[in-house]
Amino acid sequence: MSKKVTVLGAGLVGTLLSIFLAKRGYNVHAYEGRPDLRKSQLEGGRSINLALSHRGLKALKAVGLEDEIKARCIPMPGRMIHDTAGNLDFHPYGKEGQFINSVSRSGLNELLLNEAEKAGVYLHFEHRCTRVDHQTTTAYFTTPQGSIEVNSDFVFGADGAFSALRNSFMRTDRFNYEQHYITAGYKELHIPATTKGEFAMDPHALHIWPRGKFMLIALPNLDKSFTVTLFLPFEGENSFASLQSPDQVLTFFNREFADAVPLMPDFVEDFFSNPTSGLVTMRCYPWVKQNCALIGDAAHAIVPFYGQGMNAGFEDCHVLNQLLEELGTLNAEVLSRYQEMRKPDAEAIADLALYNFIEMRDKVADPKFVLQKKIEKRLNELYPNQWLPLYSMVTFSDLRYSEALEIGRKQQKIMDKVMEQESLEEHWQSLDFESIVRQL
Amino acid sequence: MSKKVTVLGAGLVGTLLSIFLAKRGYNVHAYEGRPDLRKSQLEGGRSINLALSHRGLKALKAVGLEDEIKARCIPMPGRMIHDTAGNLDFHPYGKEGQFINSVSRSGLNELLLNEAEKAGVYLHFEHRCTRVDHQTTTAYFTTPQGSIEVNSDFVFGADGAFSALRNSFMRTDRFNYEQHYITAGYKELHIPATTKGEFAMDPHALHIWPRGKFMLIALPNLDKSFTVTLFLPFEGENSFASLQSPDQVLTFFNREFADAVPLMPDFVEDFFSNPTSGLVTMRCYPWVKQNCALIGDAAHAIVPFYGQGMNAGFEDCHVLNQLLEELGTLNAEVLSRYQEMRKPDAEAIADLALYNFIEMRDKVADPKFVLQKKIEKRLNELYPNQWLPLYSMVTFSDLRYSEALEIGRKQQKIMDKVMEQESLEEHWQSLDFESIVRQL
Repeated sequence: MSKKVTVLGAGLVGTLLSIFLAKRGYNVHAYEGRPDLRKSQLEGGRSINLALSHRGLKALKAVGLEDEIKARCIPMPGRMIHDTAGNLDFHPYGKEGQFINSVSRSGLNELLLNEAEKAGVYLHFEHRCTRVDHQTTTAYFTTPQGSIEVNSDFVFGADGAFSALRNSFMRTDRFNYEQHYITAGYKELHIPATTKGEFAMDPHALHIWPRGKFMLIALPNLDKSFTVTLFLPFEGENSFASLQSPDQVLTFFNREFADAVPLMPDFVEDFFSNPTSGLVTMRCYPWVKQNCALIGDAAHAIVPFYGQGMNAGFEDCHVLNQLLEELGTLNAEVLSRYQEMRKPDAEAIADLALYNFIEMRDKVADPKFVLQKKIEKRLNELYPNQWLPLYSMVTFSDLRYSEALEIGRKQQKIMDKVMEQESLEEHWQSLDFESIVRQL
Repeated sequence: MSKKVTVLGAGLVGTLLSIFLAKRGYNVHAYEGRPDLRKSQLEGGRSINLALSHRGLKALKAVGLEDEIKARCIPMPGRMIHDTAGNLDFHPYGKEGQFINSVSRSGLNELLLNEAEKAGVYLHFEHRCTRVDHQTTTAYFTTPQGSIEVNSDFVFGADGAFSALRNSFMRTDRFNYEQHYITAGYKELHIPATTKGEFAMDPHALHIWPRGKFMLIALPNLDKSFTVTLFLPFEGENSFASLQSPDQVLTFFNREFADAVPLMPDFVEDFFSNPTSGLVTMRCYPWVKQNCALIGDAAHAIVPFYGQGMNAGFEDCHVLNQLLEELGTLNAEVLSRYQEMRKPDAEAIADLALYNFIEMRDKVADPKFVLQKKIEKRLNELYPNQWLPLYSMVTFSDLRYSEALEIGRKQQKIMDKVMEQESLEEHWQSLDFESIVRQL
């Protein structure tokens, strides 16, 4: 008889993991605390769209979903920078033909739920996991029909940043754990389609209004609206604490994001009715205790600034699937190799995501930074196999996050020296690019 | 009517805090999950003796307990280093007349409980706090008589490393938290008094058997026994995992701690019946939400290697008392200044304690390290106001832990250079000490 696997969470990572395991012949039951989102309209306050890039797409391709996904994607080949005067400046993310994708969280989840059912996964909604006994591989749930307990051969916690499996691990000895909130929070706003039913801005870009300590961003949706997110410190001069009245909000937006204001008819109302949320990085270890394992956000919740949260979770599933391919069957060795391999990569993307907030809110508006990116782009064009910019390594390649981070640090050291040169803006085209690359 | 203060925990820090507050006229109720230790023999697996030094003594003195405490202290003016051949080497901790004290945890706790009652503190035993609602300052307890809830003006969580107040803070937004276990654990053993009723070793020292990655230590008790603690990695060559049979334990002890073996008649039995425990550092912030505040281990549990856990908790109480003295009444400002002042000091002593494991288990056996300490001792003798060794700043002074750490780092940089000199062992007495001190 095939081994029984309990997957906690039928969100993005839980469903994808379930599909991978079901396709390998496991008897997979996925338990989700919320109702079936295909039958309800509740978004639960979560961000409406996400950035899907190479790592996530690769994992989806491995379960045969490439074409279905692509139809739901809006390509974003670069950042569109908005200055305070409303001037626009487009910065491509990579080479011609490279882009990240704006995709609906709920749309993608629906697709994965349907595919999971096709693959034979048993889905159980409104089953909220309260705890897991890792020694007996027993998961306990509350359901509308009362409490139940489920025994299985393996339990995966794909139940997100507030994972019940991780909370159970917390009560065991020698479990390392960290949750750290940055000093900024976020609030979602909305740019609807125009009265003519068109996108109010260029949909083929991730729009950023970088303002130093805070920023506004916007990602396109298939219905021609944009989901807008304000990232702002909780306390201080320009902060959620300082924006208490509609007048204050209006004044702040007119000063900082004037060109966005006419596109957001309800933003003052939205500002006061939508929640303000914190931004947390969670790190823990071990991810595995006996036959129970954490995966995705449950193992490594990160801040959203590199657009890699979902991609990292999907890559977890893909790596686990490759280990199963290699070693044949789900067992202690597979789980142990999975956590040993992925932990340094999770640490790396957590650090990269924290760093990228500074890049997005501040550096993209700095001419020196823009020049550096230009020089790195040229280096990549001249030496495509030797110099891949950090963003491209993270977003458009298979390189391990930990390797990308390490190479990125080396590149930054080299570029720090290059950027020290005077009047570089005028003569950068005549730099000795070969000698720069040779320093790597 | 005087304000009501709920103190969670009637351990060392909870009782001392209660005394300080009761003496200021607050209506203090202290709630302890365990039974009254004055009426039971249960030690609950906690270490039997502790190192009490200047900071702790200063706080106890402030509530008038100096004399009572001193009668219960065994002075330890230095470390007694045991090598594998059984040779002894005594390293004084500070100057002539400076010492740390071995004190019984339960004896000290009894004294503090009695004093708390004298000061008018209401003690409630077998009241286990399950959670605190910080917005209403309500604490919930389970008791042998059922569940109760307690409202008060202020709640202090002095309930240790697994604090119920901190767990309640964990469920609120934007609470930073970290728990990190080192790779070694510990197990307590015992050296009884001799058949003649004497100490089996010199009682006026903290005995250390430093062995690189692991160590044994022993502190004297008033009943002429020693509490012995083995600190050993959980995994690897010499580890708890590798010591599975009585033979393995015996062989290991005979090889590593031969001179201690004849003093511990029951150590093999103790080894298998006593628990193996982990060693954790816990950091969190904020410590204060509305009128609820964390204090002692609940705010900053540290590893035991600097002998400062209790001292740091007592200093928290003393600092809070000084703020009350200064500002007049317990309020939001006092709590806010308390956490802002103590957080950097808690971080510093947490780092110092982690570092000191390396010093105790490894460096004290290194002739170069011993020489460095000798040189620093001379520097202190020559320039007592300019050069205070780090250990002395932490243990025998009032200097903030954070300042001690900073000065200690500067000193280490200077000493690293001094120690680079060849044949220093022969000519160190003729060093230009003044020029060394001037670098500070």
